[in-house]
Amino acid sequence: MPEFRKDMILDEWVIIASERAKRPEMFREEKVKIETPSGMVCPFDKGNEEMTPPEILRMDLNGDIIDKSDPNWQIRVVPNKFPALKPVAAPGTKLYGMYSIMDGFGLHEVIINSSEHILYLSQLSQPQIKLIIDVYARRLREIKKDSRIESVIIMLNQGKDAGASLEHTHSQIFALPFNSPVLEKELRGTLRYYRLHKNCAVCDILDFEAKENKRIIFENNHFVIIQPFASRNPFETWILPKRHYSNFENISKEETQSFSECLKLLVDFFYNELSNPSFNYYIHTGPLHTKTDHHYHWHFELIPKLSIKAGFEIATGIDICITTPEDTAKFIKEKLKI
Amino acid sequence: MPEFRKDMILDEWVIIASERAKRPEMFREEKVKIETPSGMVCPFDKGNEEMTPPEILRMDLNGDIIDKSDPNWQIRVVPNKFPALKPVAAPGTKLYGMYSIMDGFGLHEVIINSSEHILYLSQLSQPQIKLIIDVYARRLREIKKDSRIESVIIMLNQGKDAGASLEHTHSQIFALPFNSPVLEKELRGTLRYYRLHKNCAVCDILDFEAKENKRIIFENNHFVIIQPFASRNPFETWILPKRHYSNFENISKEETQSFSECLKLLVDFFYNELSNPSFNYYIHTGPLHTKTDHHYHWHFELIPKLSIKAGFEIATGIDICITTPEDTAKFIKEKLKI
Repeated sequence: MPEFRKDMILDEWVIIASERAKRPEMFREEKVKIETPSGMVCPFDKGNEEMTPPEILRMDLNGDIIDKSDPNWQIRVVPNKFPALKPVAAPGTKLYGMYSIMDGFGLHEVIINSSEHILYLSQLSQPQIKLIIDVYARRLREIKKDSRIESVIIMLNQGKDAGASLEHTHSQIFALPFNSPVLEKELRGTLRYYRLHKNCAVCDILDFEAKENKRIIFENNHFVIIQPFASRNPFETWILPKRHYSNFENISKEETQSFSECLKLLVDFFYNELSNPSFNYYIHTGPLHTKTDHHYHWHFELIPKLSIKAGFEIATGIDICITTPEDTAKFIKEKLKI
Repeated sequence: MPEFRKDMILDEWVIIASERAKRPEMFREEKVKIETPSGMVCPFDKGNEEMTPPEILRMDLNGDIIDKSDPNWQIRVVPNKFPALKPVAAPGTKLYGMYSIMDGFGLHEVIINSSEHILYLSQLSQPQIKLIIDVYARRLREIKKDSRIESVIIMLNQGKDAGASLEHTHSQIFALPFNSPVLEKELRGTLRYYRLHKNCAVCDILDFEAKENKRIIFENNHFVIIQPFASRNPFETWILPKRHYSNFENISKEETQSFSECLKLLVDFFYNELSNPSFNYYIHTGPLHTKTDHHYHWHFELIPKLSIKAGFEIATGIDICITTPEDTAKFIKEKLKI
């Protein structure tokens, strides 16, 4: 059973994931290898459905839910085979000597983005990407019904350097019994901004950036692609909804279309015009059962793995970015001829 | 000039390091390469002293300060040639539209750990390592005289995967005009613990771990080597001083000897018995001008690069560790025959 353990100095939870635990000897020979199924059978390919745990959802390219025996699927959602969190226990802190521990309660789902053995999101069409976003929102609305779940992270790791353990493109959903430290910081930071300025920080960013026009890359009806002013990583990119709302699951059909257009443009840029780097992306969305509508504004962040976080960043929590977002925005716009 | 920029959502500073800035085009061809001077002249080698900025300190193997023309040096301290922070300005927040910015004020020094072209700390003797620790404390006591500096991070990156930009073994000192987010969290967490338990969290950890004897690897007169209960990384290792004090610069001569014994044992283990992985280590020490003696206890952390922080860790701030500290402690003790 995975376990939350409290760091008593930082007063923060850590997950000790015994389900995916490696024995210490495995680190002797060489650095930990990411297992990719080259030459191996891929459990995410069409035809290998029985290799995954029993599925949660199966959909065709039209976005219709289809029967578990129907081979014409485009997307499947399954529980992670080696979950970092498990839905079997109720949350609740216990003492272990001086320490606090908690069962590793939560959900850890995998969204198989495509039935074909595709490695890069950019190899999918915009309608296929739109379907993935649809599934994100659909799963979120479903998970929200469980009152034990407080917050959800939707994310994708692409490439070895980004920590992907299987090369077949897939997304992941983690559902937690509390707000993560990053979400808590975002809620505190945006509430502080709201109290000072009587406005949403992200709405003000959208206004200011539109005026300055130095870091915006693209916009359509409902979304803006931007290099953030306080960028933490080279080519870190945000997609911001123009409409102010806290929770991603309330995305409309039109907005989903608009968002998929932005995401397709972005992953195509990295694939075609940069070095097809590994990347992580994730959706920061408000807590499921606490109203944060007035100050929180959901957003999407993509971080390509183009630099290494070293001792300074780990020890201080302060990121050093070796490019300026103004330069990278200019570069991306030139390449995309926008 | 490097610049602090405030992330308005997280309410946290980021450094945009224009001095070390890369042009966006440089990321086009391939992932960013770490420049190691293989075949090139190494600026840290004996004889190449003029390749570094004017030095701050030069010492021989006896720990005596020697003249800048004396070739028999063991350690030199120099300002970083491409600093992430610069001592030229006074700190102070300015507005840039809706954003807050601040000159990148601070110090960024390099400690050349050896005049020989040595790559791994484990290739140095214990007296040589003791001298490095001596220099850490000496520089900290000196930097403390500058009232504009609020906190200091002492660290070492070894190996490409840990972000080392030059292979010749070297340490780095960063001096900041404020407490880093991680230090602030540690101060809050330990103060909270102190108020609840009327005791220091680290002192209680030392007591509890000695009783349990499941995660302690080694101890001598003044220090304990431990795998932390809420380990964030496989083989993450802490060295904890037995004496309760907040600030590393107050380390005694005897303690320096004792600490160097622990550090030598630790780096030798990783070099000889694991896979000689890249690693980051750093010293967490109390703020320079605020008294935190009653609740803060300085400590040393070493994190080998044996796993990748992926989307979940970046998006949530919650680390997933794929080994248990009990297993790794047992493994290390067996290998070291302790």
